[in-house]
Amino acid sequence: MAAFSQNEIDAFGARAEAMVNALGAISAEPDRLVRLFLTSEHRRAADRIGGWMREAGLEVSEDALGTVRGRLDGRQRLLIGSHIDTVIDAGKYDGNFGVIAGILAAEHFARRANRLTFGIDVLAFGDEEGSRFPATLSSSSACAGLFRAENLQLADRNGVALVEAIKAYGKSPDDIPHAAYKAGEAAAYVEVHIEQGPVLESRNQPLAVVTAIIGQTYLNIEFLGEAAHAGTVPMMLRRDALAGAAEAMLLGERLARETKGEVVATVGRMTVAPGASNVIPGKVVVVFDIRSGSEPARAKLADALKAGAREISDRRQLSVTITSTREVATTPCHPAIQDQFAEAIRAIGAEPLRLGSGAGHDGQAMAKLCPIGMLFVRCRGGISHNPKEYASPRDLGLAVAALIGFIERFEPEKLLV
Amino acid sequence: MAAFSQNEIDAFGARAEAMVNALGAISAEPDRLVRLFLTSEHRRAADRIGGWMREAGLEVSEDALGTVRGRLDGRQRLLIGSHIDTVIDAGKYDGNFGVIAGILAAEHFARRANRLTFGIDVLAFGDEEGSRFPATLSSSSACAGLFRAENLQLADRNGVALVEAIKAYGKSPDDIPHAAYKAGEAAAYVEVHIEQGPVLESRNQPLAVVTAIIGQTYLNIEFLGEAAHAGTVPMMLRRDALAGAAEAMLLGERLARETKGEVVATVGRMTVAPGASNVIPGKVVVVFDIRSGSEPARAKLADALKAGAREISDRRQLSVTITSTREVATTPCHPAIQDQFAEAIRAIGAEPLRLGSGAGHDGQAMAKLCPIGMLFVRCRGGISHNPKEYASPRDLGLAVAALIGFIERFEPEKLLV
Repeated sequence: MAAFSQNEIDAFGARAEAMVNALGAISAEPDRLVRLFLTSEHRRAADRIGGWMREAGLEVSEDALGTVRGRLDGRQRLLIGSHIDTVIDAGKYDGNFGVIAGILAAEHFARRANRLTFGIDVLAFGDEEGSRFPATLSSSSACAGLFRAENLQLADRNGVALVEAIKAYGKSPDDIPHAAYKAGEAAAYVEVHIEQGPVLESRNQPLAVVTAIIGQTYLNIEFLGEAAHAGTVPMMLRRDALAGAAEAMLLGERLARETKGEVVATVGRMTVAPGASNVIPGKVVVVFDIRSGSEPARAKLADALKAGAREISDRRQLSVTITSTREVATTPCHPAIQDQFAEAIRAIGAEPLRLGSGAGHDGQAMAKLCPIGMLFVRCRGGISHNPKEYASPRDLGLAVAALIGFIERFEPEKLLV
Repeated sequence: MAAFSQNEIDAFGARAEAMVNALGAISAEPDRLVRLFLTSEHRRAADRIGGWMREAGLEVSEDALGTVRGRLDGRQRLLIGSHIDTVIDAGKYDGNFGVIAGILAAEHFARRANRLTFGIDVLAFGDEEGSRFPATLSSSSACAGLFRAENLQLADRNGVALVEAIKAYGKSPDDIPHAAYKAGEAAAYVEVHIEQGPVLESRNQPLAVVTAIIGQTYLNIEFLGEAAHAGTVPMMLRRDALAGAAEAMLLGERLARETKGEVVATVGRMTVAPGASNVIPGKVVVVFDIRSGSEPARAKLADALKAGAREISDRRQLSVTITSTREVATTPCHPAIQDQFAEAIRAIGAEPLRLGSGAGHDGQAMAKLCPIGMLFVRCRGGISHNPKEYASPRDLGLAVAALIGFIERFEPEKLLV
């Protein structure tokens, strides 16, 4: 096993940060980072990444959806990937650093005399954020053999269909099936990503093992009461839809708190009608975003919230309509990969915290192909999707070292158990 | 005292309803009632009202702000008024019926042989709703001698200033001071108005004595927390501005309920930022509309709400900014006028409930001139500012009869006590 000195870790960190900055400068706009799927910025970022992969000793190719692959050959391959598209006005680390960490780790093994018993593919996906077309994970879905042909007709805000964008990018939609890995070819998929949350910072640790990409339920709850004059209707004769919604919001918060970290529930969007200061609201819609790594815990909270909303509605003489507008299952990380990441973190002297990922990742698509795992890196203030996104070079270096440690420990056959 | 038979009351009701319908047909739009201040619809409605006043035996004049006056002369005069402008997509009864009730009551006395010891002015104001210019009560303010000259520069949504609209209506801004009553000329101002609330209907009574036009406080409460990813931030690390606002809304409701009718508190408008389903809200603004006929009770609730909002904010690690954006004092109705209305209601066989008016009225301006009083008429479902607004002809007839009974009982000298 490689035991890296602090200097070596800092060298990884410095290289990673320089690469993050180089990619971060490739944007559609001068003053903020915007890099959408299949655009000229995507092209420039992919070229830069292909160049780095080649310098690292990897064999570079691109598939029909623009995913750049850097290959270190072997019978079976460990896939290491992330995405290089961004949200609008993005940070530099989200996605990009995962690809960079993969390149630096693969380079470490490409340059070694004694080869691994498996190959490595570093994958730079182009569509994780879904900021251009109304779909996400199309590039990792293609690699997993799950690309939905009907998505080719989805249009961006300028009316350009995905199929046209693929052609304009110099690729052929007919080649999409060739992006898919064959059975047995992919041993596992792993991804390094900034946490995008505050837990590592609050626990004073640089890295965490991800236990699962947690599932999500959207509950759309509409309360109907009666709009009326705010001055003329006594409190006891009101049917105030907003007061009912406020109770439901606090109920959702209390139920989530009671799970002690197992479930989070959020209302981020609501509409209040008619929406005048002097009119009692007659109609309020709140959208609950409920997430958990445990399917039963998430379902239990959603059920309790639905029952509570109905009780509130009955008591307040409102009517309530509840619809589930999104239901995404939890994607667990493979226990053996989790353990190997934990050992690698311990080996660099850190504590291997275990965290669920509350955000979505390419691993959700890749999990249909093979076992997956993820490594989280501390980011400042938990801030992401924001130009203030920041991870220290020291933490970037530790992440690269831990990824190398993981690869050294990785045994494809352990995943069969 | 006149003791009206049911047939006579129904005859008043039928006439009042026909007049309400005739005015309700005078609109800027064919499919909904829209009659704004100093428009050609205002002109047509004013002409119709002037005609009715003349037929009732009143001497008709108009002041510089278009207020139509029908006068039954006397040394001191009882003013009976309401407004003939409407909100957009209005009901037919709001304002209009009060003018009509005044005409029908004045007619009763104009036709009698033995005259009253005082005169009557029926006033049809043109600007109570404030639906054209960003100011309200300009016509009644002019009568009360309180018109603010700076309001002449206020523009409607087409950029027409009030001063231009007055000229286009054929009046001269220079004459506005002549609209004001002289000291001692006005004995009192009374107004008949639909309740615009559900209390009379819920108590199964046609009429109520108004105790006060209740005061109003707008508290604008802004909670600042931290916008963050709805999936990645544990419940205990959140600073959710919306959860804080939800608590404050329920606190406001509870505090108002505890006053058992003395205060109402409403949140009708709020903004949630950034407003995405998957982002914990970082900034929420709620506007509390707090009303009460008791100044101390309103102030006490506002203070308790402010203290509560600060406590919520501290406990949740939010910051809070509270501003009072509106402060309107309560306008009490004169106790002697209240009692005379109560006797008149009892005389027609109904129970004289006493209610605060949660909505604003011309009496707020007229109270600066002389004692005021109001009579409320039951309206279906408490609905107003809506084409569904409705009061039965029977109730309209009872209101006219009660107004006549009030005038018979009215003794200007009692108001001096």
